[in-house]
Amino acid sequence: MAVSKKRILFIIMDGMGDRACPELGGKTPLQAVDTPNIDWFVSKGNSGIMDVISPGIRPGSDTAHLSLLGYNAKEVYTGRGPFEAAGIGLIGRKGDVAFRCNFGTVDSDLNILDRRAGRIKAPDTTELVRSLSDIMIKGVEVTVREGTEHRAALLLRGPGLSSLVTDADPHDTAKVLESKPLVPEAALTAEVLNEFVRISYERMKDHPVNRKRREAGLPEANILLPRGAGSFPDIDPFPQVNGMSAACVAGVGMIKGICGVCGLDVIDLPPACTGGSDTDMILKTRIALETLEHYDFVLMNFKAPDVCGHDMMYAKKMEVIRKADVAAKYLRENMPEDMVVVFTADHSTPSTTGDHTGDPVPLTIYTDGMIQDDAEEYSEYGCAKGRLGRIRGHDLLPICMDLANRSEKFGA
Amino acid sequence: MAVSKKRILFIIMDGMGDRACPELGGKTPLQAVDTPNIDWFVSKGNSGIMDVISPGIRPGSDTAHLSLLGYNAKEVYTGRGPFEAAGIGLIGRKGDVAFRCNFGTVDSDLNILDRRAGRIKAPDTTELVRSLSDIMIKGVEVTVREGTEHRAALLLRGPGLSSLVTDADPHDTAKVLESKPLVPEAALTAEVLNEFVRISYERMKDHPVNRKRREAGLPEANILLPRGAGSFPDIDPFPQVNGMSAACVAGVGMIKGICGVCGLDVIDLPPACTGGSDTDMILKTRIALETLEHYDFVLMNFKAPDVCGHDMMYAKKMEVIRKADVAAKYLRENMPEDMVVVFTADHSTPSTTGDHTGDPVPLTIYTDGMIQDDAEEYSEYGCAKGRLGRIRGHDLLPICMDLANRSEKFGA
Repeated sequence: MAVSKKRILFIIMDGMGDRACPELGGKTPLQAVDTPNIDWFVSKGNSGIMDVISPGIRPGSDTAHLSLLGYNAKEVYTGRGPFEAAGIGLIGRKGDVAFRCNFGTVDSDLNILDRRAGRIKAPDTTELVRSLSDIMIKGVEVTVREGTEHRAALLLRGPGLSSLVTDADPHDTAKVLESKPLVPEAALTAEVLNEFVRISYERMKDHPVNRKRREAGLPEANILLPRGAGSFPDIDPFPQVNGMSAACVAGVGMIKGICGVCGLDVIDLPPACTGGSDTDMILKTRIALETLEHYDFVLMNFKAPDVCGHDMMYAKKMEVIRKADVAAKYLRENMPEDMVVVFTADHSTPSTTGDHTGDPVPLTIYTDGMIQDDAEEYSEYGCAKGRLGRIRGHDLLPICMDLANRSEKFGA
Repeated sequence: MAVSKKRILFIIMDGMGDRACPELGGKTPLQAVDTPNIDWFVSKGNSGIMDVISPGIRPGSDTAHLSLLGYNAKEVYTGRGPFEAAGIGLIGRKGDVAFRCNFGTVDSDLNILDRRAGRIKAPDTTELVRSLSDIMIKGVEVTVREGTEHRAALLLRGPGLSSLVTDADPHDTAKVLESKPLVPEAALTAEVLNEFVRISYERMKDHPVNRKRREAGLPEANILLPRGAGSFPDIDPFPQVNGMSAACVAGVGMIKGICGVCGLDVIDLPPACTGGSDTDMILKTRIALETLEHYDFVLMNFKAPDVCGHDMMYAKKMEVIRKADVAAKYLRENMPEDMVVVFTADHSTPSTTGDHTGDPVPLTIYTDGMIQDDAEEYSEYGCAKGRLGRIRGHDLLPICMDLANRSEKFGA
């Protein structure tokens, strides 16, 4: 096409969809709050509702984001482990196996005294993880990365690995377990894992950090306890599949992990972008717009509505919606013209149920020159009055790429 | 079912979908033109919007028509070549390999002097093609058909053919190329092709037509230059799949080719049905109705809106829409009662972009006895207010067959 290519911004308001709240006279938080700025995008754009996976399916944030990025989540999703590892910066590739780990306290017979090493945290964990670098076992490269508090992630990379091994973590105060292969092909992985656990004990048991903790009467963190093996999925990188450079602006580890595994660049955010209800949405929006100066596609995630939904706090969700509307005002006043902007959610987290539901989420797609539709209000039903009808999550990206003049023609 | 079977007419207004035109105050050409006769079908029928392939995907006319005929375009589409050959009457079947050809001018060393033989045309090409009949090479049947001007199509039929061969046409004034097999299994095809090119030279070099051209100082057409090998797709014939006799009323070669390959009878049209903006739509509609006296299903294609879209001429598209509405008046006044009539498009060709887009197309299905819906106006958004919601192209035929009392029950 001769027309110029536009940039695409996805604003994913995590868990935004809700159900009728008795306290709000049967309205949802979105219906109860006036959102003049998001509604501006609704009135200029086209709206509809979206089943992020398929009708009635309750998506996780991980499967939902895969779908929104255009992947078939049912084909590529291999479990939560790899995305959690990726979320703390351990982005693997096909064939790699990731584990979630705890720092634990064991005696010299490897009986567990504390499965969380007294909820140890940085900077102690930072120093301890440093002692676990440069480990290579039977041709398998071993990488450890610290998470929050007593948590860490472990990545194995090498030929012939398998995720079909049992945990070393007994999930209890018992003896550390020998990992066992669940199929013969997983024997190497179990062997490497057991050897790694042994090495973690050897290297940490007399580490200066632990000597200091011993003196202070704190539980030592003298072993790493891996669990939840997961293979990295075989995902074709988003930029390669779609011919767009792409970045993610998100505060939450798992979202960063999913985007990282899909080949998006994960933008570092200042501490004010917390991933919680107290996050600075205007700052995040500003960073998204700055990022779009260098990228064709940006996915921005606001985690706050989901947190309120899980906490079953409709009033707090309304507050978050007001903040999101102020961020929409900033966007509207500062965005360039050649943009496709999407307001949607990865799933519903109703404040009446406290967990994800399979309700379709509201969707608005805005760019200049769209055919006017009747939708005027950004909400679960307000959007249903628009021209987009009811679509599926993995169709959103092709629709936006077409509007951004970035699609290949299929046929002649 | 005890009720009687109805006949089905698809009116495909090629490229009819559009986007908001600034010159029309943000309306589309369809929204800006009053179409009382098409709207009569909207008000009596049911409407919706349709993703001809899937949401956001930009269809070609070929893949779109395959989808509208109920096929999975992603499975059966093998490229444009076979449909172009079919469009000039060379309708092959699975295993056949088709080529596009030029008549060219070569010297006795097969150096190309003119790749288009002075843009030779009928009746010269008609006579020359006649000299290339009855050719059989190594068990492969060879058929040549003339196209427009210097163009022709070549069809090879026989066991063990492959489309994985290089062109004989050098696409330049160079020596005619030896076709080479790209895989060992294509050796026979390349050999047959090279032998055919040699025979075309032998049979045409002293042909009376060329002797006359020589005398008149015109470039001789003494060789055929094949290019763009393509295998005919494996398509189950439409009449067999759907239990309906079927015909196509279209002016454009490629559409005729697609319908022909799918097993529809291609109706010959008088010159007034041009396939362009100047086509006589009332005449074409009359022919479609006459054809329906002998067939269960007719696909009629108006190419004109697509041409206007590609030319980025919204005003001309509005003119074409007015003509289509007059044809709808003729249809309404002359059609029999037992009909299912569909007004839709194969894709959008917005006059703002000048090429196909993935926007959903407007759809109206009419037959007597339908449930009343709110759609009143045939347009991209007017139809979205109807009862059909948002469907996919390959679902249209089953919906119409059901309304025509022609579907088998699935289950008991």
